[in-house]
Amino acid sequence: MVVVMAPEATSADVEAVTGLVRSAGGQAFVSRGLSRTIVGLVGDVADFEALNLGSLAGVLQVIRVSAPYKLVSREHHPARSVIRVGGVPIGPDTLTVIAGPCAVESPEQTLRAALMARSAGASMLRGGAFKPRTSPYSYQGLGEEGLRILADVRAETGLPVVTEVIDPGHVELVASYADMLQIGARNMQNFALLQAVGSAGVPVLLKRGFSATIEEWLSAAEYIAQRGNLDIVLCERGIRTFETATRNTLDISAVPVVQRLSHLPVIVDPSHSGGRRDLVLPLTRAAIAVGADGLLIDVHPQPKTALCDGDQALSESEIRHIADVIASMPPLMGRMPARSPGGLRPIRAGV
Amino acid sequence: MVVVMAPEATSADVEAVTGLVRSAGGQAFVSRGLSRTIVGLVGDVADFEALNLGSLAGVLQVIRVSAPYKLVSREHHPARSVIRVGGVPIGPDTLTVIAGPCAVESPEQTLRAALMARSAGASMLRGGAFKPRTSPYSYQGLGEEGLRILADVRAETGLPVVTEVIDPGHVELVASYADMLQIGARNMQNFALLQAVGSAGVPVLLKRGFSATIEEWLSAAEYIAQRGNLDIVLCERGIRTFETATRNTLDISAVPVVQRLSHLPVIVDPSHSGGRRDLVLPLTRAAIAVGADGLLIDVHPQPKTALCDGDQALSESEIRHIADVIASMPPLMGRMPARSPGGLRPIRAGV
Amino acid sequence: MVVVMAPEATSADVEAVTGLVRSAGGQAFVSRGLSRTIVGLVGDVADFEALNLGSLAGVLQVIRVSAPYKLVSREHHPARSVIRVGGVPIGPDTLTVIAGPCAVESPEQTLRAALMARSAGASMLRGGAFKPRTSPYSYQGLGEEGLRILADVRAETGLPVVTEVIDPGHVELVASYADMLQIGARNMQNFALLQAVGSAGVPVLLKRGFSATIEEWLSAAEYIAQRGNLDIVLCERGIRTFETATRNTLDISAVPVVQRLSHLPVIVDPSHSGGRRDLVLPLTRAAIAVGADGLLIDVHPQPKTALCDGDQALSESEIRHIADVIASMPPLMGRMPARSPGGLRPIRAGV
Amino acid sequence: MVVVMAPEATSADVEAVTGLVRSAGGQAFVSRGLSRTIVGLVGDVADFEALNLGSLAGVLQVIRVSAPYKLVSREHHPARSVIRVGGVPIGPDTLTVIAGPCAVESPEQTLRAALMARSAGASMLRGGAFKPRTSPYSYQGLGEEGLRILADVRAETGLPVVTEVIDPGHVELVASYADMLQIGARNMQNFALLQAVGSAGVPVLLKRGFSATIEEWLSAAEYIAQRGNLDIVLCERGIRTFETATRNTLDISAVPVVQRLSHLPVIVDPSHSGGRRDLVLPLTRAAIAVGADGLLIDVHPQPKTALCDGDQALSESEIRHIADVIASMPPLMGRMPARSPGGLRPIRAGV
Repeated sequence: MVVVMAPEATSADVEAVTGLVRSAGGQAFVSRGLSRTIVGLVGDVADFEALNLGSLAGVLQVIRVSAPYKLVSREHHPARSVIRVGGVPIGPDTLTVIAGPCAVESPEQTLRAALMARSAGASMLRGGAFKPRTSPYSYQGLGEEGLRILADVRAETGLPVVTEVIDPGHVELVASYADMLQIGARNMQNFALLQAVGSAGVPVLLKRGFSATIEEWLSAAEYIAQRGNLDIVLCERGIRTFETATRNTLDISAVPVVQRLSHLPVIVDPSHSGGRRDLVLPLTRAAIAVGADGLLIDVHPQPKTALCDGDQALSESEIRHIADVIASMPPLMGRMPARSPGGLRPIRAGV
Repeated sequence: MVVVMAPEATSADVEAVTGLVRSAGGQAFVSRGLSRTIVGLVGDVADFEALNLGSLAGVLQVIRVSAPYKLVSREHHPARSVIRVGGVPIGPDTLTVIAGPCAVESPEQTLRAALMARSAGASMLRGGAFKPRTSPYSYQGLGEEGLRILADVRAETGLPVVTEVIDPGHVELVASYADMLQIGARNMQNFALLQAVGSAGVPVLLKRGFSATIEEWLSAAEYIAQRGNLDIVLCERGIRTFETATRNTLDISAVPVVQRLSHLPVIVDPSHSGGRRDLVLPLTRAAIAVGADGLLIDVHPQPKTALCDGDQALSESEIRHIADVIASMPPLMGRMPARSPGGLRPIRAGV
Repeated sequence: MVVVMAPEATSADVEAVTGLVRSAGGQAFVSRGLSRTIVGLVGDVADFEALNLGSLAGVLQVIRVSAPYKLVSREHHPARSVIRVGGVPIGPDTLTVIAGPCAVESPEQTLRAALMARSAGASMLRGGAFKPRTSPYSYQGLGEEGLRILADVRAETGLPVVTEVIDPGHVELVASYADMLQIGARNMQNFALLQAVGSAGVPVLLKRGFSATIEEWLSAAEYIAQRGNLDIVLCERGIRTFETATRNTLDISAVPVVQRLSHLPVIVDPSHSGGRRDLVLPLTRAAIAVGADGLLIDVHPQPKTALCDGDQALSESEIRHIADVIASMPPLMGRMPARSPGGLRPIRAGV
Repeated sequence: MVVVMAPEATSADVEAVTGLVRSAGGQAFVSRGLSRTIVGLVGDVADFEALNLGSLAGVLQVIRVSAPYKLVSREHHPARSVIRVGGVPIGPDTLTVIAGPCAVESPEQTLRAALMARSAGASMLRGGAFKPRTSPYSYQGLGEEGLRILADVRAETGLPVVTEVIDPGHVELVASYADMLQIGARNMQNFALLQAVGSAGVPVLLKRGFSATIEEWLSAAEYIAQRGNLDIVLCERGIRTFETATRNTLDISAVPVVQRLSHLPVIVDPSHSGGRRDLVLPLTRAAIAVGADGLLIDVHPQPKTALCDGDQALSESEIRHIADVIASMPPLMGRMPARSPGGLRPIRAGV
């Protein structure tokens, strides 16, 4: 930590700072400048934060120079992690595609979407049973019925399932059906929920809040890690900016930035970022090229009748271009497309 | 709703839109322009949204022209509401000050803060027992022990209590102690929590998410209202922008904008907006002058040792300037400072 | 300046930093922490910036702790400045209202707007002759003809004139007609223009860029000051955020923040901030209450036919409420409404 | 255009709108809804804008549904344009790399940087002679001396030159040395400058303002086009958001969005977007993959001593990875790396 003294600070003000730091077991190094005096603190940041140094007379600014997260930081864990979900790896050597419908609407729609996903190269299925919607008048999901459908489709297709949980009280229920729990963007700082999934012993997909800094995102991951769960995959899905041409602004730079700061895998959601079907393909290519560890893509057998986010879901014909990209680009980046362990199970007739 | 057709849209494309709208029981009026054709829809917006018109061929844009909230809108409820919390009114004729410590730390600290608050003109006490913190290593609050302290201090001072709830599973517990439940900025779109407080039958203080549009904020209030609870007070507490000189940017314009759109009262938090003690007084004056229905202010008997947000809490000497402003400005705005019904109860000796 | 070393930095890396700083005539104080080493630099920041310390091996971050502006800073000039424009003071003891039409359209419209402005308490006239418009198809202003109209209206009404200049090549021309040169928001970092007005010897009204930080705004003022012109008034006019309910978000906190950092006066534009007529009155009250040194308000005799920003210009009936506020509120803030020296000159008949 | 009437609007209010529109030669189609009446306007938008419909009684909102730019729009010019600069094409079939030092410091530094650029696959040289800097105390460039150096280096290397112009009065001078004029991000809405380069008859590189919407950016291009100059290349260089981990947030989605709206080529600046050397390579890959028509990259023979933006300039060893990417990726996107016509001229000995 660095304490910057105000120009008008007195020697006594500086001594008050150094005295307090030393009384808390830390060391304080004073650099007296022409217009500013700076005090560098050595010791435990948490101890120093409790001192409220910013409230002392003559203190202009307190600058924290170390990150507020530890377990998810690469500082003490330099090797990048591989997280396995139902046997599917997500990490530095693979490109793992997770795809499926934004909302689970029926067994047929979900199975068809899963088969589309699989044929496009996806090795995991996503689908929403509990839907957090901005308006209470929008479709809210099928709840547990949706979870059952997802489990059935997993049995059919061999694709491990990730689905969102929005209430700490539902974590156990959702974990009993799903292979991975998704924390949505709006819940990224729902700390009760983070702690609940941290204790659930199931891998977690943590989407970035649409207005969260990277530091806040990694701090949210730290909440999960602190409860003993380090099986966390981060998902960049666009941030809120002044630009209105796209639903959100995909922060493509966040991928290499996060990979440098944290050992956790980071994937990209090209569907929610732009909110436009025509952007999914170029953003998918960009995500792979920037070095993402995976993708989360909306597909729907009939986007025109989708109950949620139909504007961005890909249809059967559109998914083929994605399939080509997923098959051809990862090797250029030194990655292999991840494969689902279920392989090619026989599929229910008539679908 | 308005559907804007792309320049290249064919007549068949336009007819597909109008046909779909009519099949859903709506009416469609077509305006053919030189470079654009526009279709105006008349009927129930929810029905139209289910049509996914944006997915149809030739559709450039779908513009919703009515608000996504109804119960909290002023459209069908033109008179501005007065919400009563433990006998204290919040509404168009009063200026209601809620003050207290960011976090409840001990009985003594809470009582002293409450007395400071009361002497400054506050008629309600706020204090956090469950604290949502960005870092898991920051102080997380006393939990139920904090709720008990708040109830005790209410008994001593006569000030109704508002405190934050962060977990749907805690709503009943918190409601058994508090007069009003606070939904914090980070939980503004925690829909499970919104629904839980909507069913709790206790007034709710709904802080604006730091990246929420006014429309999203009112939609969050609609979630609460939809469960039968219209005792909602909105609180503007600053939004996230690119400016770093202040912790957040107080969106002072939001107050008159919200008052025009919704009948719910709206108050301002000058402490969290700026995150700086020196800004609390000028922002308090600005909030009263712009027409806010109340204020939410951090006070602490010893800000230098506060366990949470000490940089912005006002001390005893600073609160006096606020007290002067609260006593003198509201009448100029046609308001009376709200009074707590508890009046001047005898206070525990020695405090 | 503070140099934060990366966790993996070696002793040699630290020595490279300290050696370079010392070779540039500075001093370097090293604080070795558990996970980070910090080097505090003492000396001339400009010298250190030329060293590109951020490029050295093992350097994580370089933090500048002093402001990049000097002449406009309050650090070496603690007393707040009073700027005089045609005899009208703008500074800490007055509230100076500048009003007029967004665009000069005709002699009649300008004179009528000026009389409206004066009757509302304005002591200066603003009006645009050169208009910077987002679209090349929008009204671009009357040019020099507009300047002549402004000068004529000044002669009629006694109100000093402020008008915008958008081209360094026009500065001399505009300065020959106007009492004060306005730099618009879009030109706040048009450094050629800033330098030109800095050399013009005429007071400058510097509007904040809609995406400029306070530090960038003061740095822009420094460009003007550096050419010898310290007669600068700053104008907060709203910043660009994600909120779309208002045209911009008035950053009301910027007023006290700037007044603490700089000795220059700062006024508020409640018209362009919100871009809505119904917000002008509440934002005017908020600006006075927060401590602004003045106001810049759009008025127009017939807003419905205005060629520029008619949505926000006040008409004759609306200006009365503003007049009341301008007459009654400043004394409560310890200020007097500023008066134009011209006083009540006889006005051309028939207007 | 669409006019949305307020719920309380009367029939007379609606007739006032339709009457005014018809009197201006337009047509008005009324859709009466349950809670809103909508009026669709057919005719010339510019005529309608002059009517200030937003000021009429009962009007809630006026929505423009067509773009404010025409000449640069793809609507009437569906084929994507190829712009040629000194014989080098920029357009849909090529990937054109422009590279060079942020600031021209000396003949040697510029030549070395140009050779680095060429060996990395660049076919054009960029370098700044007039530098717009946030602080007046930062390096401001060599001016005309820098232009001469650039022209000399062009003669040596065969690389056409793009350099920034910041003052309308300098356009002729800069155009006499350079092959392409750059408008920097801070000057994107410097309309006097846009008009000046529009009249200069030289290709223009128009960087996006860091807070400009895509619509504003294309409107700025329209200013240039309106003066008869359609040789415009757009450059995405990051936008200002709340995220501080990177200097700006590269809006990678802007590339496909712009390519859909406008026929002009669009390139990406991976150096200024992130402001970090370690991000240049991943962002370069992402830009090529998303479909950018070119790249603008900072290189410097000795980044550690660079007078401007040394933190992001690539050194000789780092440029090799870029060279590999530039050689291998474009064919996968159906593009060829653009070649400079100068080819391999003999280079001055000893460099």
